[in-house]
Amino acid sequence: MSTIEDVAKLAGLSRTTVSRVLNDHPYVSDEKKKLVQQAMEQLGFVPNSAARSLRNQKTGIIAVLIPKISTSFFSQLLDVLEMKASDKGYQLIICQTQYSKQKEKNYLNLLKTRQVDGVIMTSFENEWSVIDSYLQYGPIVLCNEYVEDAHIPMVYINQAKTGYMIAKHLLERGHTQMAYCSNGIVSEGMAARIHGFKSALSEVGLYLHEKLYFEKASTYEDGKNVFAQILKMQVKPTAIFTGSDLVAAGIISEARTADWRLPGDLAVVGYDNMEIAKLLEPMVTTVVLPVEEMATKAMDVMYEKIHNKHYRSLEKHEFLSKLALRESTIYRRNLVATS
Amino acid sequence: MSTIEDVAKLAGLSRTTVSRVLNDHPYVSDEKKKLVQQAMEQLGFVPNSAARSLRNQKTGIIAVLIPKISTSFFSQLLDVLEMKASDKGYQLIICQTQYSKQKEKNYLNLLKTRQVDGVIMTSFENEWSVIDSYLQYGPIVLCNEYVEDAHIPMVYINQAKTGYMIAKHLLERGHTQMAYCSNGIVSEGMAARIHGFKSALSEVGLYLHEKLYFEKASTYEDGKNVFAQILKMQVKPTAIFTGSDLVAAGIISEARTADWRLPGDLAVVGYDNMEIAKLLEPMVTTVVLPVEEMATKAMDVMYEKIHNKHYRSLEKHEFLSKLALRESTIYRRNLVATS
Repeated sequence: MSTIEDVAKLAGLSRTTVSRVLNDHPYVSDEKKKLVQQAMEQLGFVPNSAARSLRNQKTGIIAVLIPKISTSFFSQLLDVLEMKASDKGYQLIICQTQYSKQKEKNYLNLLKTRQVDGVIMTSFENEWSVIDSYLQYGPIVLCNEYVEDAHIPMVYINQAKTGYMIAKHLLERGHTQMAYCSNGIVSEGMAARIHGFKSALSEVGLYLHEKLYFEKASTYEDGKNVFAQILKMQVKPTAIFTGSDLVAAGIISEARTADWRLPGDLAVVGYDNMEIAKLLEPMVTTVVLPVEEMATKAMDVMYEKIHNKHYRSLEKHEFLSKLALRESTIYRRNLVATS
Repeated sequence: MSTIEDVAKLAGLSRTTVSRVLNDHPYVSDEKKKLVQQAMEQLGFVPNSAARSLRNQKTGIIAVLIPKISTSFFSQLLDVLEMKASDKGYQLIICQTQYSKQKEKNYLNLLKTRQVDGVIMTSFENEWSVIDSYLQYGPIVLCNEYVEDAHIPMVYINQAKTGYMIAKHLLERGHTQMAYCSNGIVSEGMAARIHGFKSALSEVGLYLHEKLYFEKASTYEDGKNVFAQILKMQVKPTAIFTGSDLVAAGIISEARTADWRLPGDLAVVGYDNMEIAKLLEPMVTTVVLPVEEMATKAMDVMYEKIHNKHYRSLEKHEFLSKLALRESTIYRRNLVATS
């Protein structure tokens, strides 16, 4: 590899002059600039990016903190984030936290050591005060999270409205005894979701029975366990929100084995709009997340923060999820009437 | 932020001495080192990573070129690659090529501009000669690809043996009329897979009928189309290799609608061991890829290449896939006997 010295020698100029050309220093004549450029081309000299980023204090890299890449939702989010970053000339470093507080802090250190221009967090493990302390080094944008006391841009789903929408849909379908699965994640979003769900019920004088609240259901196996518990209950629910399409798949599989007719005996609402939601029988009504919209907004906001350098500013960018209506929540009274 | 000058002032030393400490220069007394370190701690001074990488010519970053992150196989591969990189103290930059030759070249330029220490390619679009020219700038490791004339480390699945294993399994299950779906990707691996499949057939005097070879099937919808074509055939296959669990799901869905009994009327073999393979009815026999093993090896090899700096060396690291035997290929004669 050729060096700055080689370029200087070939151009017949000093190392300082070459360095000035590389740095876009104002006091260099056009003639000298041309000589340096010619020498660089002739030698195939490539200015070192580290040297370049040392000069302009920018890396062109954004870190994305993500708990688990291979999770359907996160891989979709990452997919869109990458495309949007690429459109703006940025590279993404992916940082898999695997739900570890320590790993999260290690990755936030990339801001402190100036290895990245900004950090997008799709989840977080540490107390907010811990994360907040990194804001002195660069911008942090939350994408898919909301924290009441954070003074940064937050791109998130209004989970209260999601919960409300699900319960409202099941009420309209004639259900009064509903079950609810939580994915076990403790966050303001998850608290808001169940709050919204309960609100819709209380509006019509109903409530979520304690026994019909299932904690920590996030896998196919968890879904099977949930159904096994339902099977033992004296008063069974007629509808269930599963919190995940995988959980929905587990419930449906076990319900079939137990010869339940779906959705007649149990209406099922999934979450995430995964491929399987359409492949199951019955096809599963599920919550569709605004992945593309959130990723686009998060990258737009990050770009702006990097350039205006004002990191500690509260911005709420709220998005709504939708329901994809499918067979698993067909109108209950109709089913009863025709059965 | 404090600067090197601040550190020098507080330590009562020259800027040059501070710089020498940061650079691990040999001729600095332990006493001076200590003074500098104390001053750095007191000021919360963080050495700029760009400055550090300028010194040691290493970025600590590896680029992974991947066609589409949200594809099940690639997101799993990325997941493991990230963990292994993290174990070795490396960060991953993810580069989504979206099957574009131009994007691939742009990302390979990260090596040329020294923004990364190495590139792992999980697929490739350009002619090998194009990619080969980047080897002068740093190491490239293929993970999940094999190129006959490439002189670099290659971590790959022996697809000839995969194809052979699938056909052999179906032969043992009593099938003689088999269909084969290609995913439409043109590569040496894909050519080897069908070659292996045909070899197993020809060993027993059979062959793959031209009409039973389906080109470019990779989605659920493609699977539905494949079945629609089979339905119109006079002589129908009794077994099909689908090349993808999604294609298998499409075939199964349409076969059910047409009242075919599976696997009695059609045995189905998937590929990728996706979640859905276990959720479908019948549960799908599928090819399990050695994702963890390949990712681990690729990262080990990359680490070694970065450190020994000898990039152009042919190394073949071959892995074998396995079959997860499930209901969709239950022994055919048994089924016929009991039906």
